[in-house]
Amino acid sequence: MRIAQVAPLIESVPPKHYGGTERIVSYLTEELVRVGHDVTLFASGDSVTSARLIASCQRSLRKNERCKDPVAREVLLLDHLIEQIDEFDLIHFHTGYLHFPICRYLRVPHVTTLHGRLDIPELVPVFDRFRNERLISISNAQRQPLSWANWQATIYHGLPKDLFQFYPDRGDYLAFLGRISPEKRVDRAIEIAKRAGMRLKIAAKVDRVDKRYFKRVVEPMLQESHVEWIGEISDQEKAFGLVMIEAMACGTPVIAYDAGSVSEVMEHGVTGLIVTKLDGAVEAIGRVANLSRARCREVFEKRFTASRMASDYVKVYRRMIDARMRNLNRCFESSLRAIARQPDALKDRKRTQKRPALIT
Amino acid sequence: MRIAQVAPLIESVPPKHYGGTERIVSYLTEELVRVGHDVTLFASGDSVTSARLIASCQRSLRKNERCKDPVAREVLLLDHLIEQIDEFDLIHFHTGYLHFPICRYLRVPHVTTLHGRLDIPELVPVFDRFRNERLISISNAQRQPLSWANWQATIYHGLPKDLFQFYPDRGDYLAFLGRISPEKRVDRAIEIAKRAGMRLKIAAKVDRVDKRYFKRVVEPMLQESHVEWIGEISDQEKAFGLVMIEAMACGTPVIAYDAGSVSEVMEHGVTGLIVTKLDGAVEAIGRVANLSRARCREVFEKRFTASRMASDYVKVYRRMIDARMRNLNRCFESSLRAIARQPDALKDRKRTQKRPALIT
Repeated sequence: MRIAQVAPLIESVPPKHYGGTERIVSYLTEELVRVGHDVTLFASGDSVTSARLIASCQRSLRKNERCKDPVAREVLLLDHLIEQIDEFDLIHFHTGYLHFPICRYLRVPHVTTLHGRLDIPELVPVFDRFRNERLISISNAQRQPLSWANWQATIYHGLPKDLFQFYPDRGDYLAFLGRISPEKRVDRAIEIAKRAGMRLKIAAKVDRVDKRYFKRVVEPMLQESHVEWIGEISDQEKAFGLVMIEAMACGTPVIAYDAGSVSEVMEHGVTGLIVTKLDGAVEAIGRVANLSRARCREVFEKRFTASRMASDYVKVYRRMIDARMRNLNRCFESSLRAIARQPDALKDRKRTQKRPALIT
Repeated sequence: MRIAQVAPLIESVPPKHYGGTERIVSYLTEELVRVGHDVTLFASGDSVTSARLIASCQRSLRKNERCKDPVAREVLLLDHLIEQIDEFDLIHFHTGYLHFPICRYLRVPHVTTLHGRLDIPELVPVFDRFRNERLISISNAQRQPLSWANWQATIYHGLPKDLFQFYPDRGDYLAFLGRISPEKRVDRAIEIAKRAGMRLKIAAKVDRVDKRYFKRVVEPMLQESHVEWIGEISDQEKAFGLVMIEAMACGTPVIAYDAGSVSEVMEHGVTGLIVTKLDGAVEAIGRVANLSRARCREVFEKRFTASRMASDYVKVYRRMIDARMRNLNRCFESSLRAIARQPDALKDRKRTQKRPALIT
């Protein structure tokens, strides 16, 4: 299958710094190449891939201080893609909605994975107007603000099988992994560890917007003797649910509040425990010891590898290509019938078509 | 002529607050309607026009605090336009470059007026790649960073003839009109007025980014006895050269440093004096008294009315429509010849065409 993967330009693929979307695009692309597809990656020029790379800018945009207008590069990327679109059987966008107006008129099947939060009011009229655009969600929870949109599938993220090593032995500390921000509630993790009498290692990055919160709320709590601040470790801006999957890959069970995709990704009582209150979380620390680390790894290998993710995507691609072929065949046959009935039919069809004034 | 005017959504047309571009789009639209064209304005829903209004959002975006993603609305606007594009003889964009990828494939002639500064590095590859897109500049000076782009004309702004009243009598004070920011050099105006022994009235707005500069540099200078601070008056974010044109309409000569479009808009020794140094500016205040206020108004009426602006635009529109017709005729004739030579020619042409997979 000749597949185009269209990545954001904000980070390289894979990302040198943070970039959950770019990591997933990279895993998917490499896996598709590995199983024999002919893949072209549209991404920034500092990307590294075994696919064919087509770059509309040399460097990814986040580190490019001079870049005042990121949309300019995205517009270029889109045009590079359209120019060679006949080379592909399927286009897979990871770039939001900017391509929707022109994609209405694409002859090539295409699908868009939405990687971000969808609870932004401006998105409603866009996805309403472009209801024909086929979408993929990364969890069922993510769909909620646009539940009526044209969803084709939920495809959970996957990691290369050997990216994380399985650790059979239980450690003697708790870990908090992620971003320091009010809604991530590292303060709760510190409180929970304290009550459970366990050490807590915190590996987290602090975004600029969260500096004040870190200084005021979190930093004083780091003085407590049971807390160890590790700070920023690489590859740490996790896409939705990615932390849970990484823990699973290592064999580490997770204790999580029930929010977002938690209940979809985690199997309660198997790969971790879902809690609703702080008391419940403290109590869960005792019970989590009974969960099998080997079973966590098993679930990872079954449900959350890049290979499973790629194969789910290929199923969607295949379905879309088949639908397109059926459609074309139908059009072709009805054209033949029309021509047989009336030689001027082609002319009439042209006159009555509604959409639109594009030159091919 | 059936003309679509496509305005930015950041402000209504005309703007309720600041918005040089939206003011010009409004003047142009109203003038085109007045002289009998069939005009459709694509703009925010709070716009007021005698043209047909098509709105992709109810309210303009600047005052809409909830709007986190302005590109979403622009994408909608574009799609509304494309949907009915066959209704128009010509599309006139005032919205930057977002439409370039899809406009490559438009059957309808279209042109884009660039209203802003062009010295942004990201613009270079965009205008390089879309060299076929026809552009209009609002001054020759504006073109400089992209001098090689596909410029069709420079069309200076124009104001409705009766928007400003002619004042035949000279006042006894100087005025500074515009925005408080380091590059506008209100400090110089204060110094010049002081040296010339004249009062200076300052009507200016202070943008958020310039608050610090205002507090630190300008505010202390406002204490001087010859300075009168008027503050923000409406309609004050002037597009390039608009202040000069407004002064002309009132019959007021201008003293200006030679920058941007100054030497194109102002006729040195007729509607004002161009200076290069502070000393020269002080000295010019004496000489400016000799310039005829009636002559300033005459120049305004000849060169800078909305009616002149609209007629310049119509000339460009006409040229583009004619070129398109010639092109179509050529295509049609060569198709006829090809068919005459070889009945399979149509099929072959389809196979060898390079651009691209769009459905019409």
